[in-house]
Amino acid sequence: MKAEIITIGDELLIGQIINTNQAYIAEQLNSVGISCDRMTTVGDDAAVIVDAFTEAYNRVDVVCVTGGLGPTHDDITKKKVCDFFKKDLVIHEETLAHIQALAQKRNIAMIQSNIDQALVPKDCTVIPNANGTAPGMLFEQNNKYFFVLPGVPFEMKDMIDTWIIPFLKKKNDGSVVLHKTMKTTGIGESMLAHEIGSIENIIGTDGTTTLAFLPNPLGTKLRITVKDNTIESARVKIQHAEQTLRSKVEKYIYSDDEKDLEDVIGVLLKEHNYTLSTAESCTGGLIANRITNVSGSSEYFLGGFVVYHNHLKSRELGVPEKLIADHGAVSQEVAEAMAHGARLSAKSDIALSTTGIAGPTGGTPEKPVGICWIGYSDSDSTFATKFNFGDNRLRFKERASQAALELLRRKLLKMQ
Amino acid sequence: MKAEIITIGDELLIGQIINTNQAYIAEQLNSVGISCDRMTTVGDDAAVIVDAFTEAYNRVDVVCVTGGLGPTHDDITKKKVCDFFKKDLVIHEETLAHIQALAQKRNIAMIQSNIDQALVPKDCTVIPNANGTAPGMLFEQNNKYFFVLPGVPFEMKDMIDTWIIPFLKKKNDGSVVLHKTMKTTGIGESMLAHEIGSIENIIGTDGTTTLAFLPNPLGTKLRITVKDNTIESARVKIQHAEQTLRSKVEKYIYSDDEKDLEDVIGVLLKEHNYTLSTAESCTGGLIANRITNVSGSSEYFLGGFVVYHNHLKSRELGVPEKLIADHGAVSQEVAEAMAHGARLSAKSDIALSTTGIAGPTGGTPEKPVGICWIGYSDSDSTFATKFNFGDNRLRFKERASQAALELLRRKLLKMQ
Repeated sequence: MKAEIITIGDELLIGQIINTNQAYIAEQLNSVGISCDRMTTVGDDAAVIVDAFTEAYNRVDVVCVTGGLGPTHDDITKKKVCDFFKKDLVIHEETLAHIQALAQKRNIAMIQSNIDQALVPKDCTVIPNANGTAPGMLFEQNNKYFFVLPGVPFEMKDMIDTWIIPFLKKKNDGSVVLHKTMKTTGIGESMLAHEIGSIENIIGTDGTTTLAFLPNPLGTKLRITVKDNTIESARVKIQHAEQTLRSKVEKYIYSDDEKDLEDVIGVLLKEHNYTLSTAESCTGGLIANRITNVSGSSEYFLGGFVVYHNHLKSRELGVPEKLIADHGAVSQEVAEAMAHGARLSAKSDIALSTTGIAGPTGGTPEKPVGICWIGYSDSDSTFATKFNFGDNRLRFKERASQAALELLRRKLLKMQ
Repeated sequence: MKAEIITIGDELLIGQIINTNQAYIAEQLNSVGISCDRMTTVGDDAAVIVDAFTEAYNRVDVVCVTGGLGPTHDDITKKKVCDFFKKDLVIHEETLAHIQALAQKRNIAMIQSNIDQALVPKDCTVIPNANGTAPGMLFEQNNKYFFVLPGVPFEMKDMIDTWIIPFLKKKNDGSVVLHKTMKTTGIGESMLAHEIGSIENIIGTDGTTTLAFLPNPLGTKLRITVKDNTIESARVKIQHAEQTLRSKVEKYIYSDDEKDLEDVIGVLLKEHNYTLSTAESCTGGLIANRITNVSGSSEYFLGGFVVYHNHLKSRELGVPEKLIADHGAVSQEVAEAMAHGARLSAKSDIALSTTGIAGPTGGTPEKPVGICWIGYSDSDSTFATKFNFGDNRLRFKERASQAALELLRRKLLKMQ
């Protein structure tokens, strides 16, 4: 079965609200093997709404509409659904009783607009709304399913989870969609594609498998999707694609379950029973912040130093003033001394350091904006590696923090 | 002028990614008086993409397409644009030079897919991409404007802001939409609405002005919108609404130009010629990270201590071990000692500190998850204030960092 999602509301069209509903519905439909072909967002405009209904209904088997079911003058969805299916509105007694019970519980007097909420198009199936007053509706004819739901996210989500997904699971004809996502970092999208080489070896030629490259400032996600007739056959294809990808680019893959790099290094540090500290200049606390976003990070993260001013690099980390004077604060020597000093000061097993020029100003011909040294120290070795993360300050900090965590991951896994 | 937005990508249709691009573009178009009538999301599917192009192009004056311009096999937007406008791809020399320069700067070898990024449909206007390799495109014919942009948000946003909006502003006819946003913090949405009182006094009754409350974890934005015939008349209405709002809730408003609190305190610290340091436990570096997101923050931010482990609270900040043993690490006494100690260690004029329980575990009946002490110290006084920021770890950290920066703002402005 194929689906389309229609979200209704002026607040979406002026960009006031980000449309999270359509992503939620799409994800749930996919989970029962119903692919979503198109999402459409329109305003509270009668003609456009009916056009959108007509187009979607002609194209697919399942249409999910959300929004515009509220009690105020600008909520016109229910009226347009009546026009579309040529039905009159009738009072739905169970819904009216539910609304009266809600009003009583909240100690609110019933007014006409509350009663109007219990009106539904004749002959539709009513989908109860456990969390609000606007009922959902289902129109079922010619093996097509047209759902209408309120736009309030927690009301809509509950109706999707408890009613619509179980209903559609029964109706769907057995086709299955499986996804597998792997997160990579430390390599650009083009070079990753280059190292992966022929896509055909990974996805085969029967058209059931696709591979997507999804880049962002922290790396590139690889997503394998299989649409197949049985779950067993889909799993075999996912596995084949994953193994082939791993054989090509294993070392860049840090997660295959949507986990972030800070989660991954947390698990590794706990496994090794290692403690960590950080000494950050150009990343300004971002690495410590990411590490401490993980619940339980206090087990392995002892603390960090944000040494923006040079006197703190010397005072807190013992970086010799002469080293800074001789090589500059942004140098391999200082990055190494920072990591070494943080490890000793915090009494941690491992320390990471960063020193660089996040920009947009402050660069020189020898040390341009974007330059960054990342240092690492443990009891066996101390070293620093040079990077360039570009001239956008926030992007620079994100990329530098990611590179530092990735350097730690590879050390912990004894990878090159 | 009327617009439609088309976003392309399978990741949107499976609900893996929430579509923030379309809201951003809609908001910017609205800001120059171009209303968005419809948003459509389709997958990386050739036939559906061309259908969506055709429908939108027939309906409106401005079409904005994003996504699917990357260098890998699943990026087919550029090819479909060529089909739609019946154009061949040609190398755009300036783009090629830009890509070569980027590759050189990042020390990456050029491969064929990099060169292919410089291919654009013949006769289109190329929109430069300052932050990436995929150029934007404009097709202009019969007073219709068809834009094609990459889907990577920061690349797309920069092209919208610096090129497309100035371009469309010149082309658009007459009617004016003005927005004014004020950011508040330190007060909940309901209480803010209560203190503001009657909306009619602010927006009048002629229907040209609206006021929106936009809550998020860091506070509530108040957005005034005026749709009017002339810019002068719209400005008068915006001013009236702003002044009336300020007369009611001035002290909660920290920004009226979309600036973040870290920008605002940066300006204040520079004005006073004060330096700052931080001592963070539960916020784990987030405050330092936010402060150093501001370009030029090295002028006033000396550095920070992320003291997750208690021995670092004592070693780096001189918090007496007995104080921690007597009162616990999460206490008024320790928060004050941390702020005081950070100020002395860093030799800064002012220091902020945080100690609390970010959760989701680690609470006790007397000190539940969510509790947070925020400390402040300058040469005149040292004190700490108690908050509760709830049991969602990331939300806790965001809210605590915001409260600490707001406490500093009010101290710098000598507000209660």
